[in-house]
Amino acid sequence: MTQRNASIAIVGAGDFIGAAIARRFAAEGYHVHGGRRRGEMLAPVGQEIEAGGGRFTGHSLDARDEKSVTAFLDAAEASAPLEAVIFNVGANVQFPLLETSERVFSKVWDMACKAGFLTGREAARIMLPRGAGSIFFTGATASMRGGKGYAAFGAAKAGLRSLAQSMARELGPQGLHVAHLVIDAGVDTAWVRERIAQAKGAEALAAMPPDTLMDPASIAETYLMLHRQSRDAWTHELDLRPYGENW
Amino acid sequence: MTQRNASIAIVGAGDFIGAAIARRFAAEGYHVHGGRRRGEMLAPVGQEIEAGGGRFTGHSLDARDEKSVTAFLDAAEASAPLEAVIFNVGANVQFPLLETSERVFSKVWDMACKAGFLTGREAARIMLPRGAGSIFFTGATASMRGGKGYAAFGAAKAGLRSLAQSMARELGPQGLHVAHLVIDAGVDTAWVRERIAQAKGAEALAAMPPDTLMDPASIAETYLMLHRQSRDAWTHELDLRPYGENW
Amino acid sequence: MTQRNASIAIVGAGDFIGAAIARRFAAEGYHVHGGRRRGEMLAPVGQEIEAGGGRFTGHSLDARDEKSVTAFLDAAEASAPLEAVIFNVGANVQFPLLETSERVFSKVWDMACKAGFLTGREAARIMLPRGAGSIFFTGATASMRGGKGYAAFGAAKAGLRSLAQSMARELGPQGLHVAHLVIDAGVDTAWVRERIAQAKGAEALAAMPPDTLMDPASIAETYLMLHRQSRDAWTHELDLRPYGENW
Amino acid sequence: MTQRNASIAIVGAGDFIGAAIARRFAAEGYHVHGGRRRGEMLAPVGQEIEAGGGRFTGHSLDARDEKSVTAFLDAAEASAPLEAVIFNVGANVQFPLLETSERVFSKVWDMACKAGFLTGREAARIMLPRGAGSIFFTGATASMRGGKGYAAFGAAKAGLRSLAQSMARELGPQGLHVAHLVIDAGVDTAWVRERIAQAKGAEALAAMPPDTLMDPASIAETYLMLHRQSRDAWTHELDLRPYGENW
Repeated sequence: MTQRNASIAIVGAGDFIGAAIARRFAAEGYHVHGGRRRGEMLAPVGQEIEAGGGRFTGHSLDARDEKSVTAFLDAAEASAPLEAVIFNVGANVQFPLLETSERVFSKVWDMACKAGFLTGREAARIMLPRGAGSIFFTGATASMRGGKGYAAFGAAKAGLRSLAQSMARELGPQGLHVAHLVIDAGVDTAWVRERIAQAKGAEALAAMPPDTLMDPASIAETYLMLHRQSRDAWTHELDLRPYGENW
Repeated sequence: MTQRNASIAIVGAGDFIGAAIARRFAAEGYHVHGGRRRGEMLAPVGQEIEAGGGRFTGHSLDARDEKSVTAFLDAAEASAPLEAVIFNVGANVQFPLLETSERVFSKVWDMACKAGFLTGREAARIMLPRGAGSIFFTGATASMRGGKGYAAFGAAKAGLRSLAQSMARELGPQGLHVAHLVIDAGVDTAWVRERIAQAKGAEALAAMPPDTLMDPASIAETYLMLHRQSRDAWTHELDLRPYGENW
Repeated sequence: MTQRNASIAIVGAGDFIGAAIARRFAAEGYHVHGGRRRGEMLAPVGQEIEAGGGRFTGHSLDARDEKSVTAFLDAAEASAPLEAVIFNVGANVQFPLLETSERVFSKVWDMACKAGFLTGREAARIMLPRGAGSIFFTGATASMRGGKGYAAFGAAKAGLRSLAQSMARELGPQGLHVAHLVIDAGVDTAWVRERIAQAKGAEALAAMPPDTLMDPASIAETYLMLHRQSRDAWTHELDLRPYGENW
Repeated sequence: MTQRNASIAIVGAGDFIGAAIARRFAAEGYHVHGGRRRGEMLAPVGQEIEAGGGRFTGHSLDARDEKSVTAFLDAAEASAPLEAVIFNVGANVQFPLLETSERVFSKVWDMACKAGFLTGREAARIMLPRGAGSIFFTGATASMRGGKGYAAFGAAKAGLRSLAQSMARELGPQGLHVAHLVIDAGVDTAWVRERIAQAKGAEALAAMPPDTLMDPASIAETYLMLHRQSRDAWTHELDLRPYGENW
């Protein structure tokens, strides 16, 4: 692999989508920085990437904290010019309205929306002087509609989507590519498979046709493709779902 | 006017839309409760309503504070069964992204989104045992799209709209009418006229055709109409704008 | 009832929504003109309205035919100034894609979209010199999303909705109120009840809570309310659905 | 270039987007079939592709005619299994409502919507037995909103978008990838540059920053990327616009 003098940063580098994005960009020669609450949990993906000849640095990051976000992105920029920042923090909770506490409502918003604001603004601060760079936000079905029981999560994801639009309109003409990806459906993880087995039974799980859950690697491919788009034809928003999904 | 044994509560009872809603429902015989930060500023509208034979009680209210919201709605309910709650808090600010501080971002969300959550949830708590009542949210153009410079305001308004959808889907089947009104354009106030004069000149202001700004009384009429809809044909969302508006 | 020197015209005056609109506006003193393919089928609603002291004229109308539409609206205008035109033609069909013939696709579009264009354009031609009047379009869930099996109906209804937007943007500043109503769910008719009984059984039908289907009279009330809105605060689009609807 | 045993068909193979898609897929080894009203106008792009070692067959095609569409797609399938069909017919016209004739309205719909239906249905008929294939539709800003003066074009494009949704929901679970691309802004052509010069002056044209019009080749790249997506993570809709666009 040819190493590039360029870095990317993933805010919310979880075990699935975040890790897949890390692997995909590392394979393209980027120095990848992953941040999550407990940075030590990034050791396995880091070792895997480095074993393949790539570069990965894991960070402990509280994405709700301005200083923590700034320090994380500055560290990435210090390693090599920051070319892409991906905001991938999830906070999917579901509660009946009357059981949604103010604490939960605020925490979900802090994690899924305010943290996105801090990430986008601080990424822009670094990238604007160069007039180039990508800032991508992971969305969900809840970004598009407020479903029953999703007062907290829906409000935060709708807010994040609006934020991506504001940023795209302001930063686009200054050369930054802002995009929002609506990931609609289950990602193929042990936890999702277990939930399906519990909800529908082990036989239903076994009978699921292939490719009806999303492979995080397929999602990562689209992030890379978006980053490669030339600036005369940028996508601001797209959806991703498996072929068999009922939507 | 025939008095009804019913109350309504307006969270964010400002001088224009909030006051017009107060007047309109008071004229229908409701006991109207208005809440705003400085409750003493409600004295004029209260006196006007009472002079006309209506009932109005003004309250000092911090809509971002759970206890304050609960106390306000409980007070309305104590006066007469609470039939409608209208959330009308504004927080329209515009800043370039890099000049939007975390403090501003959070404050705008607290006022325009979290306060709406608290209002809707506490209204539902009171109304659900009766299986009837209206909960209405005032939206704006920013509810629908994230415009340039509206990172804070757009995120909060998009979040509020999502919240209204979640609440409608959960509370509708339990008999509560939740609706979101997208107010798209200027309301006819001295402040708006002054801004137009500054932006386009006094002549342009003078040359504005009649009815190109919205009379708050016209907006209030639509809130009342929504409250009167029978439950077999409820509107969840509508827009309001003057005939001459360019949209 | 006080008679007004004003008429309204309903294109697609079916037995339910169309008839209810006719009754409601007639009760307000308008001379109501109803048009449908077989005008003689309008005799019952006409007799009922006239028995109540109202005015109703039924017409045979092919809404897909330019001359027929023009003649219909001219006849209404000849009776009294035309104040409102309501396009209410339905064409709800569902077919698998491969079984949707070109003939069906074109016919559905002719009825549900082209006829709406002719109606709106000819209504505008009559109303524009007065700078006032309402043009309302009945939409459906299919107006908002292309569902499985709805290639024909969805395309036509989405086209009609776009048309309503174009007309609103062009005609609004000239004083005409154009609105689109998204009627989402079943209207309470013998035919709908029969379909529910067939799909879910007679017991399920009997167990349906009250008001879970829409009374056409409730829908008509909203058409009248929209027509009464003052031009400084017009609604361009709203939805209507029963409180218990799952959406 | 390695030749694939696979073909693609472009319905509406114009000089810009259509030709760019032809070049891009031909460079990947596909046998490309282009159809437009006057097939002889495809000679230059065909010669260019063949000179580069690719395969291109031009066809005279009336996309509004069922038999013509069927024959075109059958011819592509006869050359090699049909892997992708791209509907790219434009019909962008703008007229004041009262000057939009029934003839224009119907013709625009025939070209921009009915032809898309015929294309998608006939492509599905060929691809479904294999359970694989891509069907892509070129959309525009008018697909998303009915602008002033766009009664005809907007209705047709909104109808086409709804059609793409219906097809995606029905054909997706059967293995066909249906997508709709919203191309929002000018493509870099001599004609567009001339229009800009006329509207804003030659100096404004000369002062336009680079990459503010879309290179058809960039658009074609996104069509190819969509075709390459794996079926566990398909995009149904995305937008494309230049970085400097005001939207």
